[in-house]
This record gives sequence, C-alpha cells and structure tokens, in this order.
Amino acid sequence: MMTHDQTIAALATPAGTGAIAVIRLSGTKAISIASEIFRSVSGKELSLQPTHTVHLGNIMDGERIVDEVLVTVFKGPNSYTGEDVVEISCHGSHYIQQEIIQLALKHGCRMANAGEFTLRAFLNAKMDLSQAEAVADLIASDSAASHQLAIQQMRGGFSSEIKKLREELLNFASLIELELDFAEEDVEFANRTEFQRLVNRIKHVLKRLIDSFATGNVLKNGIPVAIVGEPNVGKSTLLNALLNEDRAIVSDIAGTTRDTIEDEISIGGVSFRFIDTAGIRDTQDTIEGLGIKKTFEKMDQAQVVVFLIEAEKLIREEDFFKVEIEKIRNKYPQKALLVIANKADRISEDEREQLKAELESYTTTKEKCGFLLLSAKTGMGVDSLKEALLEYVNTGALRNDETIVTNSRHYDALLKALEEIDKVQAGLDSNLSGDLLAIDIRQALYHFGEITGEISSDDLLGNIFANFCIGK
Amino acid sequence: MMTHDQTIAALATPAGTGAIAVIRLSGTKAISIASEIFRSVSGKELSLQPTHTVHLGNIMDGERIVDEVLVTVFKGPNSYTGEDVVEISCHGSHYIQQEIIQLALKHGCRMANAGEFTLRAFLNAKMDLSQAEAVADLIASDSAASHQLAIQQMRGGFSSEIKKLREELLNFASLIELELDFAEEDVEFANRTEFQRLVNRIKHVLKRLIDSFATGNVLKNGIPVAIVGEPNVGKSTLLNALLNEDRAIVSDIAGTTRDTIEDEISIGGVSFRFIDTAGIRDTQDTIEGLGIKKTFEKMDQAQVVVFLIEAEKLIREEDFFKVEIEKIRNKYPQKALLVIANKADRISEDEREQLKAELESYTTTKEKCGFLLLSAKTGMGVDSLKEALLEYVNTGALRNDETIVTNSRHYDALLKALEEIDKVQAGLDSNLSGDLLAIDIRQALYHFGEITGEISSDDLLGNIFANFCIGK
Repeated sequence: MMTHDQTIAALATPAGTGAIAVIRLSGTKAISIASEIFRSVSGKELSLQPTHTVHLGNIMDGERIVDEVLVTVFKGPNSYTGEDVVEISCHGSHYIQQEIIQLALKHGCRMANAGEFTLRAFLNAKMDLSQAEAVADLIASDSAASHQLAIQQMRGGFSSEIKKLREELLNFASLIELELDFAEEDVEFANRTEFQRLVNRIKHVLKRLIDSFATGNVLKNGIPVAIVGEPNVGKSTLLNALLNEDRAIVSDIAGTTRDTIEDEISIGGVSFRFIDTAGIRDTQDTIEGLGIKKTFEKMDQAQVVVFLIEAEKLIREEDFFKVEIEKIRNKYPQKALLVIANKADRISEDEREQLKAELESYTTTKEKCGFLLLSAKTGMGVDSLKEALLEYVNTGALRNDETIVTNSRHYDALLKALEEIDKVQAGLDSNLSGDLLAIDIRQALYHFGEITGEISSDDLLGNIFANFCIGK
Repeated sequence: MMTHDQTIAALATPAGTGAIAVIRLSGTKAISIASEIFRSVSGKELSLQPTHTVHLGNIMDGERIVDEVLVTVFKGPNSYTGEDVVEISCHGSHYIQQEIIQLALKHGCRMANAGEFTLRAFLNAKMDLSQAEAVADLIASDSAASHQLAIQQMRGGFSSEIKKLREELLNFASLIELELDFAEEDVEFANRTEFQRLVNRIKHVLKRLIDSFATGNVLKNGIPVAIVGEPNVGKSTLLNALLNEDRAIVSDIAGTTRDTIEDEISIGGVSFRFIDTAGIRDTQDTIEGLGIKKTFEKMDQAQVVVFLIEAEKLIREEDFFKVEIEKIRNKYPQKALLVIANKADRISEDEREQLKAELESYTTTKEKCGFLLLSAKTGMGVDSLKEALLEYVNTGALRNDETIVTNSRHYDALLKALEEIDKVQAGLDSNLSGDLLAIDIRQALYHFGEITGEISSDDLLGNIFANFCIGK
C-alpha cells in the first residue's frame, strides 16, 4: 500500500495559528534531511546527538533564515513510529508551517498520508492494530468515558486477552494438525478434555466482550435518556437547567422529526443524550402522527426514561400518579425509570414531605425505579437528578474495570469468531475428525488475528488509517 | 502587573483537534509540578534529568492514566522564558488538552495570560521589547515579506542600532550632567564638536528608520496596486488571471464603496493588494459620485498604478495612447506606472511588434514607467507582469538589507526621539546651557528606551502583550 522506505513529513499539531506548531519527519532519512535544513546554534551535528534530545537553532533555506526552532531527535526503534523521527517545533504561523514542510519535501521527504505515522508504528510492531485504532479514538474523544475507553484500548485492553487466547488456540490447532500427520497410527496429541475447557473459556470471554459492545457504544456516543411528560410540564426548562449548570460541550442536533430535539450534556465526564419528546400527544394529523411514531422509536433506544409530572397534580389527583406511572412502567419495563415531580416550588413544605414519603414507598417496591422532587425553574433538585443519572452509569453501564469493546470492526470479528468457536464446539460434541475440526479452528484464529492485526490486508489497513488525521 | 514567581501553564499549539498538542509550563515550580502529574516509563525522576531532554511516560490523575505523553525539560536560563520550562506533548484531543491543563492548575500552576511566556522572556532579558513584539508579528506573518521583516526584527534588527546610539547618547548625557556638578568651575567634559557629530549621526539614522516605516507598513499589509482603465478593458479578467495562476492566499475584501474590490495576491512571496477601480467614469449620480471619490482616495494610497488599454485601440487611434497615458502620468506623477496593452491576442504579430517598439520608446523616456503587451484572456504576458511587479519591490520598496520599521509604536517613538534630538540640535546651535541641554537629551533617551524596553511601564507592557495569543 505505501512504500515503507520513504521518509514522510507532516504537520502534527492542529491547523491554524498558535504560539507553536510541530512538524514531524519519520523514516531512515529523517535525521539527515533535518540536518540539511537545520543549523544548530551551538554548531552541533544533529546525527551525532543522542536520542530524545532537543536542540535550538534555525531552519535555513540556503542562507535565508526561515525560523528559529527547537528540533527533537528520536532514534529508532525508540520513537513513536519505530523509525528515526525528528520533530521541529516552530513559531505557529501558517506561513512558517508551510515553508518548513515545503523545505522538507524539497530535501527528499514526501507528504505523509492520513494516519501513516501510526500505520508505521503498527508495521514496526510498536503497537497492535486495535491499539492503533485506539489512537484515533483517543484523539476524537470528547468526554471522560470515551477517553477512558480509548486509553484502555490503547494500553492493550482486551487485545492482550484475545492474543493470549489466540496463542492457546493456535497451540491446540497445531497439535490437532500434527495428529493428521500420524493419522494411520490413531494417536491423540491434543487432549480433548483440555481442549473442551479452552473452548468454554473462549466462548465465555467472547460472549462477555460481545455483550460489552452495547455499553461501549453507548458510552462512546452518549447514554440516551428520554424525557417524557405532558406538554408544559417543564421538560425544556429542565433541559435548560441541566445545560446551564454544566459548562460542558453542548450541541443541538436538529431532530429528524419536528418536536424531537436531542441535547448532549456531559455530567461528571459522561455524555448523556437527552431526547426531548415534546411531540407525544394524541393526534389525527398524519404528518404529526409520523413524527410521534419516530419519537417513540427514539424512546425505544433510550436506556433511561425521565418521567416528569407536576407536583401539584400529584397532590391534587391521588390516583393520577399511580395510573400514569404504572402506564409508563408497563410501557418500558426494561428501562431505568426516574419519576420526577416537577414544579416542587409551587407546593408547600408539608406537601413536599408527604409526596416524598408516598412516592418513595411506591418506587422502592419497583426495580430500576427512582423518584425525585425537583424544580427546574429554581434549580432545586437538579443536582440530585445528575447524581441519580451518574449512579445509573456507575452501577449499571460502567461496571467496574471490565473490558469494553467500542469498535464495530472488533465487534464484527468477535461475532464471527464466536460463530466459528460454536462450530468447533459442535464438532467436539459430535467427535468430528481432526482434519475437519482444524478447519473451524483456523477460521476462528483468523478472526482473532483480524482484531490484533496479526492478520491484515492492505484494504483493511487502508480503511482503518484513512480515518486518521494527517500527521498522526 | 503580573506576579513573576508563579508557575504558569497554557496550551501552546493551536486550539482544536490534531495529532498532537503541546502544553507549556514555565516558572520555578514547572519541573516539580510536572513531576507530580507525570510518571516516566523508565521510572526516572524528572528533576534529575538534564536540560533539553525528552521523556516518555503517562500523565496521571492519582492512579488514573490521563494520557501517554512526551515531556521535555528545559532548565532556566536555557529556555524560552529563561525560567524552568516543561513542555508536555500529548494526544491532540480537546478533552485531553483540557484535562492536562486542569491537572497542572490543580497542582499549583496558574493559567498564563496572553503573551506571558514572551513577557517573561523579556523580563528575564532573553530578548528586548522590539524582539518580543516581533514574535507576535512572526506568528501573524502570512507572506514571505512580512515573515522576513519579523525574523529580521526578532533577531535584533534595528534595535541593536538604537541600543548602540542610546549608549553613546547616554554617555554624553552623563558627561554634561557631570559638568553641572562643577558648574562654578566652567569646565567642559563633553566635547561639543564630537557631540554635534553624534547628533548628526543619530538624526540620520532616525530619519532613515522613520522613512522606512512607509515601506515596512506596505510590506506588512501588502503593496497597494491600483488597476485603472475604461470599463470592459479586461481589469477583472486580469485579476482572475493573476489569481488563477497563483495558488496563494486569496481574500475578497468587500470594498467600502460599491465597485471597489480589493484582492490580495501573493507573488513570489510578496503580498500585493490589487484595487480594482471599476467605478471610475463621469457620473451625475450623487451616491455613485461619492463612491468614485473614495476610489480615488484608494488610488492615492497605491504605490503602483496598472493602466490597462485595449491593444486594438492603441493601433487604431494613434493619439489615444499619448493623450491617455499622459493624463494618467500627470495625475500620479509619484507612482510607478505600468501601461498594459491588453487583448493583445486580438492584434496581429506585426501589429504587436510595432506597438511594442512605439510604447517602449515612449516609456523609456519616462521615469518609473513600464510597458507590457498582455492578454488576460489567454494568459500571455501575465508572468511578465508579475516579474515587473516584483522588480518594483526589489529595486524600490525592499531595498537591499536596509532595516525596516514595521511597528507603529516604534515609529511613534522614533518620531518623538527625532523631535527631541532636533531640540538638542537647536540647543547646541544656540549654545544652550548644559542643564537645559541635559533635559532634552534625557527626553530623547527616554524615547529610545521605549523601543528596546529599557524603559517600560506596566501599562505599555500590558498593551503590547495583550495582543499576543495565550500560550506564547
């Protein structure tokens, strides 16, 4: 796919103007090319400098000074790519960045492709493929949760687990294939009982990893929370209250249907996607009906349902809350439900106490059901709501230190590996002959290898690294 | 203005997402704070590492890994600011950048003010004030010319000249003040003839620097070129031809008046601002008249006038060219004039030769007047126009290696210094007494010191560094 013996160059820092910018060269000629365009203040020769040292000097275009810079030398294999790497830290004007890159190209570098530095790191065995993919996730991460998932994956994460299982499986595959060579003698090198145990262990791990994908995906993209309730119960006020109190990344995504707005709010470093379902009511209007249908679809994706009722109504109409809450509870039996008595500022202190007791006695009998008194207008109870949402994540979605799969390519490979392992299992159950068993094992091994990159194709690598930014 | 003993932190690379980002700490505690949040892979203690070395490890928030980073240690005074400096090169996600800065703040840094790193470099005598100002110019530079001016100024430029003159003047001031102590004895420590010579030299230098400001300003902001000619002579086509052939920074600035468009084009690294004066014609319309008045004002600022005529018309109407060119020549006697016979593709080869000879014989008799045959439509002659414009710069505006003043603060101080030196001169001429002479000399010294920063106030520094970006 890419010629590996060329020295590549690219801007590594974000485009635009800043105090400094960093231009990165990597390849066998990185240091000699840098020497040609750099004149050290101390007169030192770059190629004679130890690795991981920084040198002050000028980038020269012939006798013209382009910029005063700091040059850092990394000698392979002790560098990001595993090759010789030079980082030029220059003044951050667009003009200077371009001048230095042009100079590097003139002296024999070629422009790096997207992700080519990380690709080289992978090809030079500085990291496996899932770790390389985590680098892109890390750079794209915008919340504590997605960041933590990427860091975990970059530091080995589940790929080390996969690698270990793959090696054990490979070992059995070899033994079974060895048996084939001695087919006439009817020996059994691979202990079938031990093999059965390994297959069970692999199935267990695969299932756990596959299950974690739903969680991983949710954490990466934000946990969907549906806000439901009658018009004017204060849904938008609540959203605003959550937004205003948290100076987090806020994005308004215009919903696919009218009246459905999604707001992403970061609470305690975890992204929540609030789905405002203002559109739910009985209607004869066809278009509005379609909109409401889509709203219900959105709500089906939600992991948490926040149900708003007016506190006054709860006080006045005793039956109301039982009927309404039961209705919602029955509609979404699987989802965590947070019942919120809003506009609590409009009822008296006594009424609040009474309501609290009543609802708590109700909700404690139900699973995954919480209750809160709140006033979106005054902000009373908003913090408690946040805590309740975070508690949901901590006790539910983000269980302990379990490895979580976030990448759909990995998910796909895990599913396929499980399919093959199931075939192996079936083969064992039916005393399948070694040669047929070996075929299914090899298939499973293939899908394991896909995750870590021990098996990869130019197409696959091209697809993965095309999503990187240039300079990484 | 700012407490100098605190350790400051800021993002040094452009905001946004990139492969890497650099966070810079500076101050007495930079290394110890970095040690607290950094865990080296090799287990090395940061504070024990030599200056200008790079270390791989993790930024830790307690036991949580925030990112895998490279940390560079610079020990004062061998750093940009002259203080201990640590640069943390992390993955370039906005989230990680913010996390690391927050961690640094939590461990005792404070957020750096705009330009505070460079301010500290100035306060620690790593550079004088005009050099510090050049850093901001350098970052803002977007053409070869503005970049070269900033580099020149950053590397000492004219401030070393000013500093030398200031010292000599200071010496004389001391001698004259010494005379005052011995006033009763009527001695003369300061040789008046030598002093007169110094004053002459200073005046000469000041005048040259003051004159250079017009050039410097023009180079910094682009050399204004007015394109004049009748409607439909091909002015816009010419502009497009210049734009298309040069993949340079192009910006359309909507003119202040209708029909006046300014296009900035970089030719050979020098910015030219082309002022398209489509609006010039006789009119009775008041509003249009106002527009044309402004166009003429714009043209008055131009340093080069490009006058387009149709080649065919020149051939057909023999008098035309003499009359018209004389008219333009008389209107702008001071400006460089380039007469361009456009649509040269519409006349025959013979006619072109004839026209060439005729016009060349005319233009060579005139100062600052050039002639070109061109076809904006086919692109013929466009390169020659570019060369002619660059030649104007190289022989005129960008004379040799002369020091050029580009900063209006320096210009202002130079004007004031000249004013005071003129007073000193007048004092010398009229044999003014030493005590009165000394006052004027001190005033001149004050203005010299303002340029280099030997004399500065918190207000002045505040103003200068407020224009820097944070992180520089």
